[in-house]
Amino acid sequence: MSYGNNPYGQGGGYAAPPGAFPPQNAQVSPQAQQWFAMVDRDRSGKINSSELQAALVNGRGEHFSDNACKLMISMFDNDASGTIDIFEFEKLYNYINQWLQVFKTYDQDSSGHIEEHELTQAFTQMGFRFTPDFIQFLVKKSDSQNHKEVSVDQFIVLCIQIQRFTEAFRQRDTQQNGTITIGFEDFLTVAIGCSY
Amino acid sequence: MSYGNNPYGQGGGYAAPPGAFPPQNAQVSPQAQQWFAMVDRDRSGKINSSELQAALVNGRGEHFSDNACKLMISMFDNDASGTIDIFEFEKLYNYINQWLQVFKTYDQDSSGHIEEHELTQAFTQMGFRFTPDFIQFLVKKSDSQNHKEVSVDQFIVLCIQIQRFTEAFRQRDTQQNGTITIGFEDFLTVAIGCSY
Repeated sequence: MSYGNNPYGQGGGYAAPPGAFPPQNAQVSPQAQQWFAMVDRDRSGKINSSELQAALVNGRGEHFSDNACKLMISMFDNDASGTIDIFEFEKLYNYINQWLQVFKTYDQDSSGHIEEHELTQAFTQMGFRFTPDFIQFLVKKSDSQNHKEVSVDQFIVLCIQIQRFTEAFRQRDTQQNGTITIGFEDFLTVAIGCSY
Repeated sequence: MSYGNNPYGQGGGYAAPPGAFPPQNAQVSPQAQQWFAMVDRDRSGKINSSELQAALVNGRGEHFSDNACKLMISMFDNDASGTIDIFEFEKLYNYINQWLQVFKTYDQDSSGHIEEHELTQAFTQMGFRFTPDFIQFLVKKSDSQNHKEVSVDQFIVLCIQIQRFTEAFRQRDTQQNGTITIGFEDFLTVAIGCSY
């Protein structure tokens, strides 16, 4: 699942597996089955965060962050086992592909990274109106190496965080005026619960 | 920095380094210098999150989480380089030792983990009055393996998170009545900014 030197050259950033596996489960697409077999290194029939991390590389040639992989596994790990089976994996596979498509759309210069103005445009098109200061804050927060750009795994984490916190905020914004009144424990529950 | 089978047997969980290094910097304690030399595997004169992670083991014999190490490095990494020098490391070393002491205090059965009732007591003594539901939520959130207990690295992360969010909440709780009114972008800034 290389996302390296040629970030978009291989069908959304996915390298083809070295051989075609025969379909083993009619309910799961052959692509997802092939990927599952590659990612499931210990052949346990389950994929954990470390196996996912070993398979995913961003545009800087770095593996996806621990956080990004744990976050994505947790979204599809219905029994909270820390692992996903092939059916859950197919959903994750489609989900990651969708994010790669979104990322490509906003990475206008095909650098494999999103810069500040590209991130502004992404959020605007998602329906958010953020101030320049807030966008700068997001880039700085994501990008600990101070590259002033956001890699695909950082972008996915940011978008999921903002989606989660926005949902939690909206539920409490009963008057829909963009402000909420919130108690201490509820505040902590949202802040800690939606983080990863 | 083993915290394994005998979690408290070696002076706060720290194994002594195999040899005594001569003091190289009078401003830094010999203990911190010895530890720095051990943790700085690539001899770069700086310690990053991965080097810290390789050196720290919790009571389950697992390395401290990626999150815990990144969070702790970020707290002492004044130039946001992702690394800390020997002076910053000494502060971190003292900080970790203080947390180990706190953890020991609440780990009444010396299991190397904190259970729900021990966590309740810890927060009560720190001045918080949390509901049982909230404590359960914290344990469940920390403990993805469903052990119903919190390891030392998870405990450190939880306490730092709660400290940060409490501080952000207090700054906004101008009437000190335990509720705040907060706008959308400020809410996102706190939620994302204080998370790790």
